[in-house]
Amino acid sequence: MKRFIAAISALAVSIGCYADNTWRTLELDNTILMTLPQGKVVIELAPQFTPKHVDKFKKLAKQGFYDGVKFYRVIDGFVAQAGPADGSEKDKSVPNIAMEGEWTTNEKFSYTQVQSPDLFAEITGFKDGFALAHNPKEKSAWLTHCPGVIAMARGNEPDTGSSHFYIVNGQAPRYLDRIMSIFGRVVYGMNHIQSLQRTAVIEGDTPVDKKDHSPIISMQLMADVKPEDRILIEVENTESEKYLEKIIDRKKREAAFFYKKPPPVLDICQTPVKSRVVKSSS
Amino acid sequence: MKRFIAAISALAVSIGCYADNTWRTLELDNTILMTLPQGKVVIELAPQFTPKHVDKFKKLAKQGFYDGVKFYRVIDGFVAQAGPADGSEKDKSVPNIAMEGEWTTNEKFSYTQVQSPDLFAEITGFKDGFALAHNPKEKSAWLTHCPGVIAMARGNEPDTGSSHFYIVNGQAPRYLDRIMSIFGRVVYGMNHIQSLQRTAVIEGDTPVDKKDHSPIISMQLMADVKPEDRILIEVENTESEKYLEKIIDRKKREAAFFYKKPPPVLDICQTPVKSRVVKSSS
Repeated sequence: MKRFIAAISALAVSIGCYADNTWRTLELDNTILMTLPQGKVVIELAPQFTPKHVDKFKKLAKQGFYDGVKFYRVIDGFVAQAGPADGSEKDKSVPNIAMEGEWTTNEKFSYTQVQSPDLFAEITGFKDGFALAHNPKEKSAWLTHCPGVIAMARGNEPDTGSSHFYIVNGQAPRYLDRIMSIFGRVVYGMNHIQSLQRTAVIEGDTPVDKKDHSPIISMQLMADVKPEDRILIEVENTESEKYLEKIIDRKKREAAFFYKKPPPVLDICQTPVKSRVVKSSS
Repeated sequence: MKRFIAAISALAVSIGCYADNTWRTLELDNTILMTLPQGKVVIELAPQFTPKHVDKFKKLAKQGFYDGVKFYRVIDGFVAQAGPADGSEKDKSVPNIAMEGEWTTNEKFSYTQVQSPDLFAEITGFKDGFALAHNPKEKSAWLTHCPGVIAMARGNEPDTGSSHFYIVNGQAPRYLDRIMSIFGRVVYGMNHIQSLQRTAVIEGDTPVDKKDHSPIISMQLMADVKPEDRILIEVENTESEKYLEKIIDRKKREAAFFYKKPPPVLDICQTPVKSRVVKSSS
Protein backbone atom coordinates (compact mmCIF):
# COMPACT_ATOMS: atom_id res chain seq x y z
CA MET A 1 0.00 0.00 0.00
CA LYS A 2 1.24 3.49 -0.76
CA ARG A 3 -0.18 6.92 -0.70
CA PHE A 4 -0.85 8.42 -4.10
CA ILE A 5 -0.13 12.03 -3.39
CA ALA A 6 0.35 13.45 -6.88
CA ALA A 7 -3.13 12.47 -7.93
CA ILE A 8 -4.65 13.70 -4.72
CA SER A 9 -3.32 17.19 -5.15
CA ALA A 10 -3.91 17.38 -8.88
CA LEU A 11 -7.37 15.95 -9.21
CA ALA A 12 -9.02 16.04 -5.81
CA VAL A 13 -9.32 12.31 -5.54
CA SER A 14 -10.04 10.98 -2.11
CA ILE A 15 -7.23 10.77 0.37
CA GLY A 16 -6.48 7.18 1.18
CA CYS A 17 -4.21 4.26 0.61
CA TYR A 18 -4.24 2.50 -2.71
CA ALA A 19 -3.51 -1.18 -3.09
CA ASP A 20 -0.99 -2.73 -5.45
CA ASN A 21 -3.16 -5.66 -6.52
CA THR A 22 -5.11 -4.64 -9.59
CA TRP A 23 -7.62 -7.51 -9.56
CA ARG A 24 -9.87 -8.75 -6.81
CA THR A 25 -11.27 -12.30 -6.57
CA LEU A 26 -14.96 -12.55 -5.77
CA GLU A 27 -15.94 -14.47 -2.64
CA LEU A 28 -17.93 -17.61 -3.45
CA ASP A 29 -20.21 -16.89 -0.53
CA ASN A 30 -21.14 -13.43 -1.90
CA THR A 31 -21.53 -14.36 -5.54
CA ILE A 32 -24.68 -15.55 -7.29
CA LEU A 33 -24.90 -17.76 -10.37
CA MET A 34 -28.16 -17.10 -12.22
CA THR A 35 -28.81 -19.58 -15.03
CA LEU A 36 -31.11 -18.36 -17.80
CA PRO A 37 -32.12 -20.04 -21.07
CA GLN A 38 -30.05 -17.26 -22.67
CA GLY A 39 -26.90 -18.15 -20.68
CA LYS A 40 -25.19 -17.78 -17.34
CA VAL A 41 -25.08 -14.55 -15.34
CA VAL A 42 -22.81 -13.85 -12.35
CA ILE A 43 -23.79 -11.27 -9.73
CA GLU A 44 -21.58 -9.90 -6.99
CA LEU A 45 -23.52 -9.14 -3.81
CA ALA A 46 -22.78 -6.12 -1.63
CA PRO A 47 -23.19 -7.15 2.04
CA GLN A 48 -20.92 -4.29 3.11
CA PHE A 49 -23.55 -1.79 1.88
CA THR A 50 -26.87 -3.64 1.97
CA PRO A 51 -26.47 -6.41 4.56
CA LYS A 52 -30.10 -7.32 5.21
CA HIS A 53 -31.06 -7.48 1.55
CA VAL A 54 -28.04 -9.62 0.72
CA ASP A 55 -28.82 -11.94 3.61
CA LYS A 56 -32.41 -12.28 2.46
CA PHE A 57 -31.55 -12.76 -1.21
CA LYS A 58 -28.99 -15.44 -0.33
CA LYS A 59 -31.53 -17.29 1.82
CA LEU A 60 -34.13 -17.19 -0.95
CA ALA A 61 -31.57 -18.37 -3.51
CA LYS A 62 -30.52 -21.24 -1.22
CA GLN A 63 -34.16 -22.29 -0.88
CA GLY A 64 -34.50 -22.44 -4.66
CA PHE A 65 -37.12 -19.72 -4.36
CA TYR A 66 -36.21 -18.07 -7.68
CA ASP A 67 -35.94 -21.29 -9.72
CA GLY A 68 -38.69 -21.10 -12.35
CA VAL A 69 -39.58 -17.51 -11.47
CA LYS A 70 -40.09 -15.28 -14.51
CA PHE A 71 -38.93 -11.87 -15.67
CA TYR A 72 -42.42 -10.44 -15.94
CA ARG A 73 -41.51 -6.78 -16.44
CA VAL A 74 -38.75 -6.18 -18.93
CA ILE A 75 -38.70 -2.70 -20.39
CA ASP A 76 -36.04 -1.92 -22.95
CA GLY A 77 -33.66 0.77 -21.73
CA PHE A 78 -34.94 0.65 -18.15
CA VAL A 79 -35.13 -2.53 -16.07
CA ALA A 80 -35.68 -6.30 -16.16
CA GLN A 81 -37.77 -7.27 -13.15
CA ALA A 82 -38.48 -10.78 -11.82
CA GLY A 83 -40.53 -12.30 -9.04
CA PRO A 84 -43.35 -14.77 -8.31
CA ALA A 85 -46.86 -14.01 -9.57
CA ASP A 86 -48.29 -11.04 -7.68
CA GLY A 87 -50.53 -12.18 -4.85
CA SER A 88 -49.63 -15.88 -5.21
CA GLU A 89 -48.94 -18.00 -2.11
CA LYS A 90 -45.26 -17.97 -2.98
CA ASP A 91 -45.31 -14.19 -3.30
CA LYS A 92 -47.11 -13.72 0.01
CA SER A 93 -44.81 -16.17 1.81
CA VAL A 94 -41.95 -13.65 1.91
CA PRO A 95 -42.14 -10.96 4.60
CA ASN A 96 -41.33 -7.35 3.77
CA ILE A 97 -37.89 -5.92 4.37
CA ALA A 98 -36.89 -2.40 5.46
CA MET A 99 -35.13 -0.04 3.03
CA GLU A 100 -31.35 0.05 2.85
CA GLY A 101 -31.08 2.85 0.32
CA GLU A 102 -28.19 4.78 1.88
CA TRP A 103 -25.89 4.72 4.85
CA THR A 104 -24.28 7.21 7.22
CA THR A 105 -20.65 8.10 6.61
CA ASN A 106 -18.00 9.38 8.97
CA GLU A 107 -14.67 11.09 8.31
CA LYS A 108 -12.95 7.76 7.79
CA PHE A 109 -15.18 6.84 4.83
CA SER A 110 -12.83 6.39 1.88
CA TYR A 111 -13.33 5.43 -1.73
CA THR A 112 -11.90 6.19 -5.17
CA GLN A 113 -13.41 9.49 -6.25
CA VAL A 114 -14.43 9.78 -9.87
CA GLN A 115 -16.43 12.97 -10.32
CA SER A 116 -17.32 16.08 -8.35
CA PRO A 117 -19.79 17.57 -8.81
CA ASP A 118 -21.90 15.02 -10.61
CA LEU A 119 -25.31 15.90 -12.10
CA PHE A 120 -27.17 13.99 -9.37
CA ALA A 121 -24.76 14.13 -6.42
CA GLU A 122 -21.91 16.05 -4.83
CA ILE A 123 -19.35 13.30 -5.44
CA THR A 124 -19.35 9.95 -7.19
CA GLY A 125 -16.80 7.18 -6.93
CA PHE A 126 -16.15 3.47 -6.54
CA LYS A 127 -15.72 1.30 -3.51
CA ASP A 128 -15.13 -2.44 -3.94
CA GLY A 129 -16.16 -2.08 -7.59
CA PHE A 130 -19.55 -0.60 -6.74
CA ALA A 131 -20.53 2.82 -8.09
CA LEU A 132 -21.61 5.11 -5.27
CA ALA A 133 -22.48 8.71 -4.60
CA HIS A 134 -21.59 10.68 -1.51
CA ASN A 135 -22.89 13.81 0.14
CA PRO A 136 -20.31 14.72 2.82
CA LYS A 137 -22.47 17.53 4.27
CA GLU A 138 -25.38 15.18 4.81
CA LYS A 139 -22.93 12.44 5.88
CA SER A 140 -24.69 10.08 3.53
CA ALA A 141 -23.60 7.71 0.77
CA TRP A 142 -25.54 5.36 -1.49
CA LEU A 143 -25.06 2.90 -4.33
CA THR A 144 -26.10 4.40 -7.66
CA HIS A 145 -28.41 3.00 -10.34
CA CYS A 146 -25.92 2.15 -13.08
CA PRO A 147 -26.57 -0.48 -15.79
CA GLY A 148 -26.21 -3.95 -14.31
CA VAL A 149 -27.09 -3.16 -10.70
CA ILE A 150 -29.61 -5.40 -8.98
CA ALA A 151 -32.06 -3.87 -6.51
CA MET A 152 -35.21 -4.89 -4.66
CA ALA A 153 -38.51 -3.73 -6.11
CA ARG A 154 -41.14 -2.28 -3.77
CA GLY A 155 -44.58 -0.66 -3.58
CA ASN A 156 -45.16 3.03 -2.91
CA GLU A 157 -44.20 2.74 0.76
CA PRO A 158 -40.45 2.51 1.42
CA ASP A 159 -40.30 -0.71 3.48
CA THR A 160 -42.36 -2.88 1.15
CA GLY A 161 -39.71 -4.83 -0.74
CA SER A 162 -39.97 -8.63 -0.45
CA SER A 163 -38.59 -10.91 -3.17
CA HIS A 164 -39.14 -9.08 -6.48
CA PHE A 165 -35.92 -7.66 -7.86
CA TYR A 166 -34.84 -5.71 -10.92
CA ILE A 167 -31.66 -5.35 -12.92
CA VAL A 168 -31.01 -2.02 -14.68
CA ASN A 169 -30.70 -2.68 -18.42
CA GLY A 170 -30.53 0.88 -19.80
CA GLN A 171 -29.35 4.43 -19.24
CA ALA A 172 -28.84 4.87 -15.49
CA PRO A 173 -32.17 5.84 -13.81
CA ARG A 174 -30.34 7.86 -11.17
CA TYR A 175 -33.58 9.40 -9.91
CA LEU A 176 -34.15 6.06 -8.15
CA ASP A 177 -30.99 6.51 -6.07
CA ARG A 178 -31.47 6.48 -2.28
CA ILE A 179 -35.09 5.36 -2.50
CA MET A 180 -34.39 1.78 -3.62
CA SER A 181 -32.14 -0.87 -2.08
CA ILE A 182 -29.35 -1.83 -4.47
CA PHE A 183 -27.65 -4.99 -3.24
CA GLY A 184 -25.36 -6.20 -6.02
CA ARG A 185 -24.24 -5.88 -9.61
CA VAL A 186 -23.89 -8.11 -12.66
CA VAL A 187 -20.20 -8.85 -13.27
CA TYR A 188 -20.66 -11.39 -16.06
CA GLY A 189 -23.34 -12.16 -18.66
CA MET A 190 -25.02 -8.75 -18.95
CA ASN A 191 -25.57 -9.60 -22.64
CA HIS A 192 -27.97 -12.34 -21.51
CA ILE A 193 -29.93 -9.84 -19.41
CA GLN A 194 -30.14 -7.67 -22.52
CA SER A 195 -31.55 -10.63 -24.47
CA LEU A 196 -34.46 -11.28 -22.09
CA GLN A 197 -37.90 -11.22 -23.71
CA ARG A 198 -39.29 -7.68 -23.42
CA THR A 199 -42.71 -7.73 -21.78
CA ALA A 200 -43.81 -4.16 -22.40
CA VAL A 201 -44.41 -3.13 -25.97
CA ILE A 202 -45.12 0.32 -27.31
CA GLU A 203 -48.61 1.49 -28.25
CA GLY A 204 -49.82 -0.24 -31.40
CA ASP A 205 -47.28 -3.07 -31.25
CA THR A 206 -48.12 -6.77 -30.78
CA PRO A 207 -48.50 -7.59 -27.06
CA VAL A 208 -46.30 -10.31 -25.56
CA ASP A 209 -48.00 -13.42 -24.15
CA LYS A 210 -47.17 -14.18 -20.50
CA LYS A 211 -46.10 -17.69 -21.45
CA ASP A 212 -43.25 -16.15 -23.45
CA HIS A 213 -41.78 -14.30 -20.47
CA SER A 214 -38.19 -15.41 -19.81
CA PRO A 215 -37.77 -17.75 -16.83
CA ILE A 216 -34.91 -18.08 -14.37
CA ILE A 217 -33.76 -21.70 -14.60
CA SER A 218 -31.87 -21.49 -11.32
CA MET A 219 -30.48 -18.94 -8.88
CA GLN A 220 -27.66 -20.35 -6.74
CA LEU A 221 -25.05 -19.09 -4.35
CA MET A 222 -21.74 -19.79 -6.15
CA ALA A 223 -20.45 -21.53 -3.00
CA ASP A 224 -23.25 -24.09 -3.42
CA VAL A 225 -22.44 -24.77 -7.09
CA LYS A 226 -20.37 -27.90 -7.82
CA PRO A 227 -16.74 -26.76 -8.23
CA GLU A 228 -16.59 -27.88 -11.88
CA ASP A 229 -19.70 -25.82 -12.71
CA ARG A 230 -18.57 -22.62 -11.01
CA ILE A 231 -17.67 -19.55 -13.01
CA LEU A 232 -14.84 -17.80 -11.20
CA ILE A 233 -14.60 -14.08 -11.81
CA GLU A 234 -12.11 -11.41 -10.85
CA VAL A 235 -12.98 -7.72 -11.05
CA GLU A 236 -10.79 -4.67 -11.23
CA ASN A 237 -9.76 -3.53 -7.78
CA THR A 238 -11.13 -0.01 -7.76
CA GLU A 239 -9.00 0.76 -4.70
CA SER A 240 -5.78 0.02 -6.60
CA GLU A 241 -3.25 2.58 -7.71
CA LYS A 242 -3.61 1.30 -11.26
CA TYR A 243 -7.35 1.89 -11.26
CA LEU A 244 -6.89 5.40 -9.94
CA GLU A 245 -4.44 6.08 -12.76
CA LYS A 246 -7.04 4.81 -15.25
CA ILE A 247 -9.60 7.28 -13.91
CA ILE A 248 -7.12 10.13 -14.24
CA ASP A 249 -6.17 9.08 -17.78
CA ARG A 250 -9.80 8.67 -18.78
CA LYS A 251 -10.50 12.29 -17.89
CA LYS A 252 -7.57 13.49 -19.97
CA ARG A 253 -8.54 11.63 -23.17
CA GLU A 254 -5.06 11.85 -24.61
CA ALA A 255 -5.48 9.27 -27.38
CA ALA A 256 -5.04 10.59 -30.92
CA PHE A 257 -8.69 9.76 -31.60
CA PHE A 258 -9.73 12.77 -29.50
CA TYR A 259 -8.79 15.47 -32.00
CA LYS A 260 -10.99 17.77 -29.95
CA LYS A 261 -11.01 17.09 -26.20
CA PRO A 262 -14.27 16.38 -24.40
CA PRO A 263 -14.91 18.06 -21.02
CA PRO A 264 -12.72 16.48 -18.30
CA VAL A 265 -15.66 14.90 -16.52
CA LEU A 266 -16.75 11.29 -16.05
CA ASP A 267 -20.20 9.77 -15.77
CA ILE A 268 -19.79 7.22 -12.95
CA CYS A 269 -22.10 4.84 -14.80
CA GLN A 270 -20.05 5.08 -17.98
CA THR A 271 -16.75 4.41 -16.21
CA PRO A 272 -15.89 0.72 -16.65
CA VAL A 273 -14.94 -1.67 -13.88
CA LYS A 274 -13.71 -4.67 -15.82
CA SER A 275 -14.26 -8.33 -15.04
CA ARG A 276 -12.21 -11.31 -16.19
CA VAL A 277 -12.93 -15.01 -16.18
CA VAL A 278 -10.53 -17.12 -14.13
CA LYS A 279 -12.46 -20.36 -14.69
CA SER A 280 -15.45 -21.03 -16.96
CA SER A 281 -18.16 -23.53 -16.17
CA SER A 282 -17.46 -27.01 -17.50
CA MET B 1 -49.48 27.11 -31.61
CA LYS B 2 -49.35 29.08 -28.39
CA ARG B 3 -46.73 30.55 -26.20
CA PHE B 4 -46.12 28.67 -22.95
CA ILE B 5 -45.23 31.52 -20.69
CA ALA B 6 -45.65 29.98 -17.23
CA ALA B 7 -43.08 27.31 -17.93
CA ILE B 8 -40.69 29.76 -19.50
CA SER B 9 -40.55 31.97 -16.45
CA ALA B 10 -40.60 29.15 -13.92
CA LEU B 11 -38.13 26.73 -15.40
CA ALA B 12 -36.05 28.62 -17.90
CA VAL B 13 -37.16 26.52 -20.83
CA SER B 14 -36.40 27.95 -24.22
CA ILE B 15 -38.58 30.72 -25.50
CA GLY B 16 -40.55 29.56 -28.45
CA CYS B 17 -43.86 28.39 -29.70
CA TYR B 18 -45.14 24.98 -28.75
CA ALA B 19 -47.33 22.92 -31.00
CA ASP B 20 -50.64 21.33 -30.08
CA ASN B 21 -50.02 18.06 -31.91
CA THR B 22 -48.42 15.62 -29.49
CA TRP B 23 -47.32 13.04 -32.06
CA ARG B 24 -45.26 13.44 -35.20
CA THR B 25 -45.39 11.07 -38.19
CA LEU B 26 -42.00 10.03 -39.57
CA GLU B 27 -41.30 10.85 -43.20
CA LEU B 28 -40.92 7.72 -45.31
CA ASP B 29 -38.03 9.33 -47.13
CA ASN B 30 -36.09 9.91 -43.91
CA THR B 31 -36.77 6.58 -42.25
CA ILE B 32 -34.74 3.38 -42.52
CA LEU B 33 -35.99 -0.18 -42.13
CA MET B 34 -33.14 -2.44 -41.02
CA THR B 35 -34.05 -6.13 -41.08
CA LEU B 36 -32.01 -8.37 -38.79
CA PRO B 37 -32.37 -12.10 -38.02
CA GLN B 38 -33.44 -10.87 -34.56
CA GLY B 39 -36.23 -8.67 -35.93
CA LYS B 40 -37.02 -5.37 -37.58
CA VAL B 41 -35.47 -2.06 -36.55
CA VAL B 42 -36.68 1.40 -37.60
CA ILE B 43 -34.29 4.36 -37.64
CA GLU B 44 -35.24 8.02 -38.05
CA LEU B 45 -32.61 9.96 -39.97
CA ALA B 46 -31.66 13.54 -39.10
CA PRO B 47 -31.02 15.46 -42.34
CA GLN B 48 -31.73 18.76 -40.56
CA PHE B 49 -28.60 18.23 -38.41
CA THR B 50 -26.33 15.93 -40.43
CA PRO B 51 -27.33 16.40 -44.08
CA LYS B 52 -24.29 14.93 -45.84
CA HIS B 53 -24.17 11.81 -43.70
CA VAL B 54 -27.88 11.21 -44.16
CA ASP B 55 -27.57 11.70 -47.90
CA LYS B 56 -24.68 9.23 -48.05
CA PHE B 57 -26.36 6.65 -45.80
CA LYS B 58 -29.54 6.79 -47.86
CA LYS B 59 -27.58 6.32 -51.08
CA LEU B 60 -25.72 3.32 -49.66
CA ALA B 61 -28.96 1.80 -48.35
CA LYS B 62 -30.62 2.28 -51.75
CA GLN B 63 -27.70 0.50 -53.42
CA GLY B 64 -28.15 -2.48 -51.09
CA PHE B 65 -24.66 -1.77 -49.77
CA TYR B 66 -25.45 -2.89 -46.22
CA ASP B 67 -27.34 -6.07 -47.15
CA GLY B 68 -25.28 -8.95 -45.76
CA VAL B 69 -22.88 -6.65 -43.91
CA LYS B 70 -22.11 -7.81 -40.38
CA PHE B 71 -22.02 -6.30 -36.93
CA TYR B 72 -18.35 -7.07 -36.35
CA ARG B 73 -17.82 -5.01 -33.20
CA VAL B 74 -20.53 -5.41 -30.61
CA ILE B 75 -19.45 -4.46 -27.10
CA ASP B 76 -22.01 -4.84 -24.35
CA GLY B 77 -22.85 -1.49 -22.77
CA PHE B 78 -21.10 0.53 -25.46
CA VAL B 79 -21.80 0.17 -29.19
CA ALA B 80 -22.80 -2.23 -31.95
CA GLN B 81 -20.76 -1.41 -35.05
CA ALA B 82 -21.26 -2.70 -38.59
CA GLY B 83 -19.50 -2.35 -41.91
CA PRO B 84 -17.84 -4.32 -44.72
CA ALA B 85 -14.61 -6.23 -43.98
CA ASP B 86 -11.80 -3.73 -43.34
CA GLY B 87 -9.70 -3.20 -46.46
CA SER B 88 -12.06 -5.19 -48.73
CA GLU B 89 -12.92 -3.87 -52.19
CA LYS B 90 -16.40 -3.02 -50.92
CA ASP B 91 -14.90 -1.16 -47.97
CA LYS B 92 -12.49 0.81 -50.16
CA SER B 93 -15.20 1.63 -52.69
CA VAL B 94 -16.75 4.26 -50.43
CA PRO B 95 -15.01 7.65 -50.30
CA ASN B 96 -14.46 9.41 -46.98
CA ILE B 97 -16.87 12.00 -45.70
CA ALA B 98 -16.18 15.17 -43.71
CA MET B 99 -17.28 15.42 -40.06
CA GLU B 100 -20.67 16.87 -39.17
CA GLY B 101 -20.28 16.70 -35.41
CA GLU B 102 -21.82 20.07 -34.51
CA TRP B 103 -23.38 23.11 -36.10
CA THR B 104 -23.39 26.88 -35.57
CA THR B 105 -26.40 28.39 -33.86
CA ASN B 106 -27.85 31.86 -33.99
CA GLU B 107 -30.29 33.67 -31.71
CA LYS B 108 -33.25 32.11 -33.46
CA PHE B 109 -32.16 28.56 -32.59
CA SER B 110 -34.97 27.08 -30.51
CA TYR B 111 -35.59 23.72 -28.90
CA THR B 112 -37.21 22.24 -25.80
CA GLN B 113 -34.73 22.70 -22.99
CA VAL B 114 -34.37 19.81 -20.56
CA GLN B 115 -31.40 20.49 -18.31
CA SER B 116 -28.98 23.33 -17.53
CA PRO B 117 -26.26 22.83 -16.60
CA ASP B 118 -25.71 19.25 -17.67
CA LEU B 119 -22.58 17.32 -16.66
CA PHE B 120 -21.16 17.49 -20.20
CA ALA B 121 -22.72 20.67 -21.59
CA GLU B 122 -24.23 24.02 -20.72
CA ILE B 123 -27.73 23.06 -21.84
CA THR B 124 -29.38 19.91 -23.11
CA GLY B 125 -32.71 19.55 -24.83
CA PHE B 126 -34.71 18.02 -27.66
CA LYS B 127 -35.40 19.16 -31.17
CA ASP B 128 -37.49 16.99 -33.48
CA GLY B 129 -37.10 14.14 -30.99
CA PHE B 130 -33.32 14.22 -31.11
CA ALA B 131 -31.32 14.78 -27.91
CA LEU B 132 -28.93 17.68 -28.32
CA ALA B 133 -26.57 19.86 -26.33
CA HIS B 134 -26.04 23.56 -26.77
CA ASN B 135 -23.32 25.99 -25.83
CA PRO B 136 -24.78 29.47 -26.46
CA LYS B 137 -21.47 31.24 -25.79
CA GLU B 138 -19.68 29.17 -28.41
CA LYS B 139 -22.78 29.37 -30.63
CA SER B 140 -22.56 25.64 -31.12
CA ALA B 141 -24.99 22.74 -30.79
CA TRP B 142 -24.60 19.01 -31.37
CA LEU B 143 -26.53 15.76 -31.18
CA THR B 144 -25.61 13.77 -28.07
CA HIS B 145 -24.59 10.11 -27.73
CA CYS B 146 -27.67 8.63 -26.09
CA PRO B 147 -28.62 4.94 -26.31
CA GLY B 148 -30.05 4.20 -29.75
CA VAL B 149 -28.28 6.92 -31.72
CA ILE B 150 -26.59 5.90 -34.96
CA ALA B 151 -23.32 7.57 -35.93
CA MET B 152 -20.57 7.11 -38.48
CA ALA B 153 -17.39 5.38 -37.27
CA ARG B 154 -14.04 6.86 -38.28
CA GLY B 155 -10.26 6.54 -37.86
CA ASN B 156 -8.15 8.87 -35.73
CA GLU B 157 -8.46 11.74 -38.19
CA PRO B 158 -11.78 13.58 -38.13
CA ASP B 159 -12.80 13.34 -41.78
CA THR B 160 -12.25 9.60 -42.20
CA GLY B 161 -15.75 8.17 -41.87
CA SER B 162 -16.98 6.16 -44.87
CA SER B 163 -19.62 3.45 -44.45
CA HIS B 164 -19.03 1.85 -41.04
CA PHE B 165 -21.60 2.94 -38.50
CA TYR B 166 -22.36 2.24 -34.86
CA ILE B 167 -25.46 2.26 -32.69
CA VAL B 168 -25.03 3.11 -28.99
CA ASN B 169 -26.28 0.14 -26.92
CA GLY B 170 -25.25 1.22 -23.40
CA GLN B 171 -24.80 4.07 -20.97
CA ALA B 172 -24.39 7.24 -23.04
CA PRO B 173 -20.72 7.69 -24.09
CA ARG B 174 -21.08 11.47 -24.02
CA TYR B 175 -17.31 11.97 -24.33
CA LEU B 176 -17.82 11.15 -28.02
CA ASP B 177 -20.11 14.15 -28.51
CA ARG B 178 -18.98 16.70 -31.12
CA ILE B 179 -16.21 14.45 -32.46
CA MET B 180 -18.46 11.93 -34.18
CA SER B 181 -21.25 12.45 -36.71
CA ILE B 182 -24.58 11.29 -35.30
CA PHE B 183 -27.13 11.07 -38.10
CA GLY B 184 -30.18 9.29 -36.70
CA ARG B 185 -31.73 7.31 -33.90
CA VAL B 186 -33.49 3.99 -33.43
CA VAL B 187 -37.21 4.59 -32.88
CA TYR B 188 -38.33 0.95 -32.95
CA GLY B 189 -36.68 -2.43 -32.27
CA MET B 190 -33.88 -1.40 -29.92
CA ASN B 191 -34.41 -4.77 -28.20
CA HIS B 192 -33.13 -6.45 -31.37
CA ILE B 193 -29.99 -4.28 -31.31
CA GLN B 194 -29.50 -5.42 -27.70
CA SER B 195 -29.77 -9.04 -28.82
CA LEU B 196 -26.98 -8.83 -31.41
CA GLN B 197 -24.17 -11.32 -30.93
CA ARG B 198 -21.46 -9.69 -28.80
CA THR B 199 -18.10 -9.91 -30.57
CA ALA B 200 -15.79 -8.77 -27.77
CA VAL B 201 -15.51 -11.04 -24.77
CA ILE B 202 -13.75 -10.34 -21.50
CA GLU B 203 -10.33 -11.76 -20.68
CA GLY B 204 -10.53 -15.51 -20.08
CA ASP B 205 -13.89 -15.99 -21.76
CA THR B 206 -14.50 -18.05 -24.91
CA PRO B 207 -13.81 -15.96 -28.05
CA VAL B 208 -16.59 -15.52 -30.61
CA ASP B 209 -16.04 -16.93 -34.12
CA LYS B 210 -16.43 -14.37 -36.92
CA LYS B 211 -18.94 -16.62 -38.65
CA ASP B 212 -21.25 -16.07 -35.67
CA HIS B 213 -21.29 -12.28 -36.03
CA SER B 214 -24.84 -10.99 -36.62
CA PRO B 215 -25.60 -9.97 -40.21
CA ILE B 216 -27.86 -7.25 -41.57
CA ILE B 217 -30.38 -8.99 -43.82
CA SER B 218 -31.37 -5.74 -45.49
CA MET B 219 -31.17 -1.98 -45.00
CA GLN B 220 -33.88 -0.10 -46.92
CA LEU B 221 -35.28 3.38 -47.10
CA MET B 222 -38.86 3.01 -45.81
CA ALA B 223 -40.12 4.83 -48.93
CA ASP B 224 -38.69 1.97 -51.00
CA VAL B 225 -40.38 -0.76 -48.94
CA LYS B 226 -43.62 -2.22 -50.33
CA PRO B 227 -46.52 -0.43 -48.56
CA GLU B 228 -47.76 -3.64 -46.91
CA ASP B 229 -44.31 -4.33 -45.46
CA ARG B 230 -43.75 -0.86 -44.06
CA ILE B 231 -43.70 -0.21 -40.34
CA LEU B 232 -45.21 3.21 -39.74
CA ILE B 233 -44.06 4.94 -36.60
CA GLU B 234 -45.04 8.13 -34.86
CA VAL B 235 -42.84 9.71 -32.21
CA GLU B 236 -43.64 12.17 -29.46
CA ASN B 237 -43.49 15.72 -30.73
CA THR B 238 -40.84 17.17 -28.44
CA GLU B 239 -41.89 20.66 -29.52
CA SER B 240 -45.43 20.15 -28.21
CA GLU B 241 -46.89 21.80 -25.16
CA LYS B 242 -47.72 18.36 -23.78
CA TYR B 243 -44.13 17.20 -24.05
CA LEU B 244 -42.91 20.33 -22.30
CA GLU B 245 -45.35 19.63 -19.48
CA LYS B 246 -43.98 16.09 -19.23
CA ILE B 247 -40.46 17.42 -18.80
CA ILE B 248 -41.62 19.77 -16.07
CA ASP B 249 -43.53 16.98 -14.30
CA ARG B 250 -40.63 14.59 -14.59
CA LYS B 251 -38.38 16.98 -12.69
CA LYS B 252 -40.93 17.31 -9.90
CA ARG B 253 -41.38 13.55 -9.30
CA GLU B 254 -44.69 14.03 -7.55
CA ALA B 255 -45.84 10.39 -7.66
CA ALA B 256 -46.36 8.73 -4.25
CA PHE B 257 -43.54 6.32 -5.10
CA PHE B 258 -41.04 9.12 -4.50
CA TYR B 259 -41.27 9.19 -0.71
CA LYS B 260 -37.99 11.10 -0.82
CA LYS B 261 -37.56 13.43 -3.79
CA PRO B 262 -34.59 13.04 -6.12
CA PRO B 263 -32.71 16.19 -7.25
CA PRO B 264 -34.81 18.15 -9.80
CA VAL B 265 -32.45 17.37 -12.67
CA LEU B 266 -32.83 15.26 -15.81
CA ASP B 267 -30.28 13.23 -17.71
CA ILE B 268 -31.14 14.02 -21.34
CA CYS B 269 -30.35 10.41 -22.30
CA GLN B 270 -32.69 9.05 -19.62
CA THR B 271 -35.59 11.28 -20.68
CA PRO B 272 -37.90 9.22 -22.90
CA VAL B 273 -39.20 10.27 -26.29
CA LYS B 274 -41.84 7.66 -26.96
CA SER B 275 -42.68 5.96 -30.23
CA ARG B 276 -45.90 4.27 -31.23
CA VAL B 277 -46.73 1.92 -34.07
CA VAL B 278 -49.35 3.17 -36.52
CA LYS B 279 -49.00 0.18 -38.85
CA SER B 280 -47.00 -3.03 -38.38
CA SER B 281 -45.42 -4.95 -41.23
CA SER B 282 -47.67 -7.59 -42.71
